[in-house]
Amino acid sequence: MYTFEQLSEKVNRIIGELDIPDSPPELYDPIRYILSIGGKRVRPVLALMAANLFKDNIEDALPPAVSIELFHNFTLIHDDIMDHASLRRNHPTVHTKWNTNIGILSGDALNIYAYGHLLKSRKDKLFRLLEIFNETALEVCEGQQLDMNYEHVREITMEQYLEMIRLKTAVLLAGAMKIGALIADASEEQILHAYNCGMNLGMAFQIQDDYLDTYGDVNLFGKTIGGDILSNKKTFLLVHAMEHLSPEAKQQLFKEMDVEKPNKEHKIKTIRQLFDVAGSPGEARRKMEQYYKAGMRELKSIGVPPERRIIIEDLAEKLVSRKN
Amino acid sequence: MYTFEQLSEKVNRIIGELDIPDSPPELYDPIRYILSIGGKRVRPVLALMAANLFKDNIEDALPPAVSIELFHNFTLIHDDIMDHASLRRNHPTVHTKWNTNIGILSGDALNIYAYGHLLKSRKDKLFRLLEIFNETALEVCEGQQLDMNYEHVREITMEQYLEMIRLKTAVLLAGAMKIGALIADASEEQILHAYNCGMNLGMAFQIQDDYLDTYGDVNLFGKTIGGDILSNKKTFLLVHAMEHLSPEAKQQLFKEMDVEKPNKEHKIKTIRQLFDVAGSPGEARRKMEQYYKAGMRELKSIGVPPERRIIIEDLAEKLVSRKN
Repeated sequence: MYTFEQLSEKVNRIIGELDIPDSPPELYDPIRYILSIGGKRVRPVLALMAANLFKDNIEDALPPAVSIELFHNFTLIHDDIMDHASLRRNHPTVHTKWNTNIGILSGDALNIYAYGHLLKSRKDKLFRLLEIFNETALEVCEGQQLDMNYEHVREITMEQYLEMIRLKTAVLLAGAMKIGALIADASEEQILHAYNCGMNLGMAFQIQDDYLDTYGDVNLFGKTIGGDILSNKKTFLLVHAMEHLSPEAKQQLFKEMDVEKPNKEHKIKTIRQLFDVAGSPGEARRKMEQYYKAGMRELKSIGVPPERRIIIEDLAEKLVSRKN
Repeated sequence: MYTFEQLSEKVNRIIGELDIPDSPPELYDPIRYILSIGGKRVRPVLALMAANLFKDNIEDALPPAVSIELFHNFTLIHDDIMDHASLRRNHPTVHTKWNTNIGILSGDALNIYAYGHLLKSRKDKLFRLLEIFNETALEVCEGQQLDMNYEHVREITMEQYLEMIRLKTAVLLAGAMKIGALIADASEEQILHAYNCGMNLGMAFQIQDDYLDTYGDVNLFGKTIGGDILSNKKTFLLVHAMEHLSPEAKQQLFKEMDVEKPNKEHKIKTIRQLFDVAGSPGEARRKMEQYYKAGMRELKSIGVPPERRIIIEDLAEKLVSRKN
């Protein structure tokens, strides 16, 4: 059995040794850059863990696992352009460090490169891998599109929110576990449970992200608390509050959101209080717990001996109790 | 034997019947749009023609041929963003009709969709197809990057220009013919000759494009004559003129290029005269002819009976004598 650190170390070693071309540097330097500024490598690690449920030797899962991380990093480059984000993992985003055109094009190249790396996978599984990869990748695009659409909408329902984070975040964790199980010769039923496990963990993961952005410990969280509130982002907390506040309190919420140049501290404090009134943080924790438990049920349904599940159970427990 | 029109008709029928999802419309409508505004479908037709060199039945070549066209259209969406182009085939570009974010994301989705369509190809050829597809796609990105780099450079050499158009334009025509030959069970040597044939035709095609933008017949060309001159684009003509004008004439060329808000007619007329002085249009025709002939030699080297080559010879002849 591996630890999370051992697996992310394995992934990082491969990423560090990729044969990314040198020229033209404007195309390939941004790729090396985004891959070098880290991240937890949660997706490839989950793929490896899913493979490890079935097999001790997880070497075969490495190429598709790394491809998922490459794809994920491509989406980060393009998402940061679309979201006008200037920082990513405390470093300048690609389009900020270089420019938007370089961000678009190096992102495209990284997406293609991810497909190229996938060809290092077991040939007999390649068709299925590509099917999963393509389907998941399109869903991630759909999720990003919904996220952008909802920026211009005053109010969305909890159902719309959950579908958006399912596509934008959860399907990629689900796809990672599916690919890991597939490559380790799991049965179709086991592959499905692995997929559902990743999906539920992905939902819990995103709700925890939303929660921490408003209720995290500033010393542990690593980024400024309240960023989502300041940008009026449609988070679990905001969507829940809108559905549960009294008409008067909801008007106050809209009023705060509409101030053109708000006092930041005041806006964060006021809206956080409205979330508290609506019971949103408690509901976020409850919902997250619910997805976490559903994920653990799916994991059990895979039907491997308990000792093989421990590493994923540990990771899942960390995901929902993390502070950053 | 098929005609060009029959083959582009086949391609258009498949493109018209693609199962592109409906929702979210902001993601998928731009894909339907770019595919609906036409284009000559030269790349997929070349793939089908290459297959037709070896086999009467070209059905197997249709999925990868269409994938190439899908990929090509993805690059058009992103290139138009990067080049700030507002018109494409006389229609508003995607980012103009919608917005830049939608252009980025729908382009990404179309790239992924192109990979998805590739899975409809013969399974025993899939690995090779993907290798060719990935390699070609990365090269196209490299070519676009060089093109952008050279925008900010005063002067480039003919060698740099030729390498740029090789990557940006020629490799995709070469890849199309390679894929067609591969899928029709050609030998490795035949596949290589098909690739080289496409490469040479691609070079001729791009030089003809450059030539027509300045020396085309306004009534036949379909877009305004002189656009490349106005944007100081590094075309065959400009690169050749810079290498062959006298120091004095070259200074005049730079002077015209540096005027911030030029009188358009004057700029086009003056620079065209400098091209004439340098002998650039004649050299463009000569170079194009050279690539065309090299392409035809490669085609002959494939070693199929002359009557099977006629359709590609006709197309090549049309490409170099076309007026639009």
